[in-house]
Amino acid sequence: MAGNRTFQGPKGTRDFYPSRMAIRRHIEQAWHSASVDSGFEEIEGPMFEHLDLYTVKSGPEIVSQLFSFRREGGDDDYAMRPEFTPTLARMAAAKGKSLPIPTKWYAIPAHFRAERPQRGRLREHNQWNVDLIGTTGPAADIEVMSTALLALERLGLTSEDVKLRVSHRETVARVLSALGVPEDRLVDAFQLLDRRDKTDEETFRAKAAELGLDSEGVARFDAAARTTASLSEPVSAIADRIGIPVEAFESLALLREGLVDAGLSEWCVIDIGIVRGLAYYTGMVFEVFDTRGAERAVAGGGRYDRLIELFGGPSLPACGFGMGDVVLELVLAEKGLLGADDGASFLPRPDVFAVSTCEEGDAAMQSLLVALRRGGLHARRSYKTTRNVGKLLADAGRCGAHSAIILDQGIGERQVILKDLEGGEQEVLDVDGLVDRIRTLVSGRGGE
Amino acid sequence: MAGNRTFQGPKGTRDFYPSRMAIRRHIEQAWHSASVDSGFEEIEGPMFEHLDLYTVKSGPEIVSQLFSFRREGGDDDYAMRPEFTPTLARMAAAKGKSLPIPTKWYAIPAHFRAERPQRGRLREHNQWNVDLIGTTGPAADIEVMSTALLALERLGLTSEDVKLRVSHRETVARVLSALGVPEDRLVDAFQLLDRRDKTDEETFRAKAAELGLDSEGVARFDAAARTTASLSEPVSAIADRIGIPVEAFESLALLREGLVDAGLSEWCVIDIGIVRGLAYYTGMVFEVFDTRGAERAVAGGGRYDRLIELFGGPSLPACGFGMGDVVLELVLAEKGLLGADDGASFLPRPDVFAVSTCEEGDAAMQSLLVALRRGGLHARRSYKTTRNVGKLLADAGRCGAHSAIILDQGIGERQVILKDLEGGEQEVLDVDGLVDRIRTLVSGRGGE
Repeated sequence: MAGNRTFQGPKGTRDFYPSRMAIRRHIEQAWHSASVDSGFEEIEGPMFEHLDLYTVKSGPEIVSQLFSFRREGGDDDYAMRPEFTPTLARMAAAKGKSLPIPTKWYAIPAHFRAERPQRGRLREHNQWNVDLIGTTGPAADIEVMSTALLALERLGLTSEDVKLRVSHRETVARVLSALGVPEDRLVDAFQLLDRRDKTDEETFRAKAAELGLDSEGVARFDAAARTTASLSEPVSAIADRIGIPVEAFESLALLREGLVDAGLSEWCVIDIGIVRGLAYYTGMVFEVFDTRGAERAVAGGGRYDRLIELFGGPSLPACGFGMGDVVLELVLAEKGLLGADDGASFLPRPDVFAVSTCEEGDAAMQSLLVALRRGGLHARRSYKTTRNVGKLLADAGRCGAHSAIILDQGIGERQVILKDLEGGEQEVLDVDGLVDRIRTLVSGRGGE
Repeated sequence: MAGNRTFQGPKGTRDFYPSRMAIRRHIEQAWHSASVDSGFEEIEGPMFEHLDLYTVKSGPEIVSQLFSFRREGGDDDYAMRPEFTPTLARMAAAKGKSLPIPTKWYAIPAHFRAERPQRGRLREHNQWNVDLIGTTGPAADIEVMSTALLALERLGLTSEDVKLRVSHRETVARVLSALGVPEDRLVDAFQLLDRRDKTDEETFRAKAAELGLDSEGVARFDAAARTTASLSEPVSAIADRIGIPVEAFESLALLREGLVDAGLSEWCVIDIGIVRGLAYYTGMVFEVFDTRGAERAVAGGGRYDRLIELFGGPSLPACGFGMGDVVLELVLAEKGLLGADDGASFLPRPDVFAVSTCEEGDAAMQSLLVALRRGGLHARRSYKTTRNVGKLLADAGRCGAHSAIILDQGIGERQVILKDLEGGEQEVLDVDGLVDRIRTLVSGRGGE
């Protein structure tokens, strides 16, 4: 035994003390309610999986980013999950033909990565995952995007604060082909597009030329990569700007129309430069960005119609997104949407706070608390030994209690004083009517 | 890429499909509400910790029961958390003198153990942890126990279904001393007591004799280990039965009195044989058992006044308990408290289910859904291509929707048909008044 040494949590992980946890639950509550209201049902899988579930899709190079392990004496390799999609695909695949069409699932799992921690990127974080499996077409794509926006709106963000940038891989592939990129170099072209912002001018042009483009093609490729448009513009305007026949934009045009019809125009921007690095996307792709200078991605997703099949399931189209808690919390805090008190305002407020001014009150306290809680009330007590009612009630105020009960000599006749801590009135009540009275008092002002 | 191979989750872990997840949330909801109503605040820590956080308390032999790992290229040893108490103690210790007195925390973390999985014991499970730090005395002990019982009661269990068996280590130590166990063998005596049910008669007697007891002492030790009493009996009756002066039972007597005063008598039984294996308990100890033949422990806890100090924090008394989800779910299922439909009855019911019978309806569908959901309603749609209203509404019935809206030609005049799926009435409504009307309809019958 090491005695009195102190310990610290692992680097890149977080300790959630109550007010920080209340912020986390506030964010998760928006995720839950947006998912449920949009008809998605919650699932969850194990926190770790067989290692090869991750290498099958991403190749062996992913192993260095994983926390992997074996059981002592065992011979199976496991890894803590770095993302939820493989688990989702495995669970969908396991249902085979019995999977309902469509299947609408969401999850709020913890994810782990063995990277060097930095601002906005931790070794452990939580991510909201939403997936719609079994249908193709823009309606499903839009359902998924509108679910992401619904949660952000409920957290207080506006279309000024965040923008959903959307593109369509089918359209981009046709644009790239029209520019002269051969079929077998499309994947490379997507990768170059994806890294456009991280690549300097010269390198970008050199790499674009390697794809078989002439200098005019390179310039047009560059221009396409930078093309954005508001949803109020018709897609033909984009086609004109890049100089590609509008027919190439068919998929994107349908998507745009759907977003406009759904009333989401102000939240969305078309951005041909959005690719999403992951190779498995097949159609619509999107990212939600903070519109501040930092331009961090709050969420990202798209359509991946071959993924479930890759994990041994039936051939099923699917689309979805992920939204992590780390960047989102930073964005909400910067916008002043988490209050000025480090989350304290998100802590649950007691319905009633009990204090005792005498020994008879002390003796009756525990049974009274048990009765109040059995009655469904959030009931706390003072643990102070003072008999000073003012000091005792100060505690009630500090935790935001809606009401207080004072156990004084009256408890001998089973009577207590009930004090409305917002209105200020007080009354003497029989213990038996207490639960109903407090419930009326609190619900009258919409307390929780 | 391995193509179409199928994958399975790791042995001893669970995949939570929607209805199973709904059961999990139902249980967690009882844990959350019992905690919050009892004044506990939620915390959470990392899913993995430095390995030595676990070896400091339990010694190196615990390593074989842990999933432990290193980051590639790193030199820190980590382990997935097998229990929450070390994290809790670390977090409390980190606050040092600034920790509020008392501190009432709860958590619902996932735990991992590298054991062979068996019924009721998995490699990954979730456990409710409740801790009250900073106060001594029976009031805090009882607050913790009553919180455990409150959750079980809310899940539908009665005092016939489960019993809380309680003892007090201080009392048991005094009983053992009175029987002749020397001070330096008390820990061994507690261990023997703890394993009473798993030890055969002969071995038990031999081991008891090793503790320095004569044959009469062994017999009385055996009798004490089997002593249980209802809370209606005074503690002096127990003292008489074991033949030990009642003074030895002071702590247990106070605890019994408190439980009786709190109105928890029918839920509780005194059981001198309850020890709780873990060496760090210092006072009250309890377990909650299923009263069926299986007698499985649903929860267990006690007082551990030296634990926070052991993890480098200030010297603070504390008590708490853990309640796992695996045994609890088995018990609830056996009592018929999870319904007969594998959890489907716990799935959220839609407020409204939208169907379309024409192309104009299809076109208006997405914007209508977005509006309903922005209005805070749980709104689903049919994905079927049929125009048969009966077939479309059958889907609404299957998911338990409270109401349905039918988008027919009337949508041209911004009108839809709203159908009350419980009452059966239907009405034609303007789209703009829809959210309010559905909210009234659903809240009128206490829907969610």
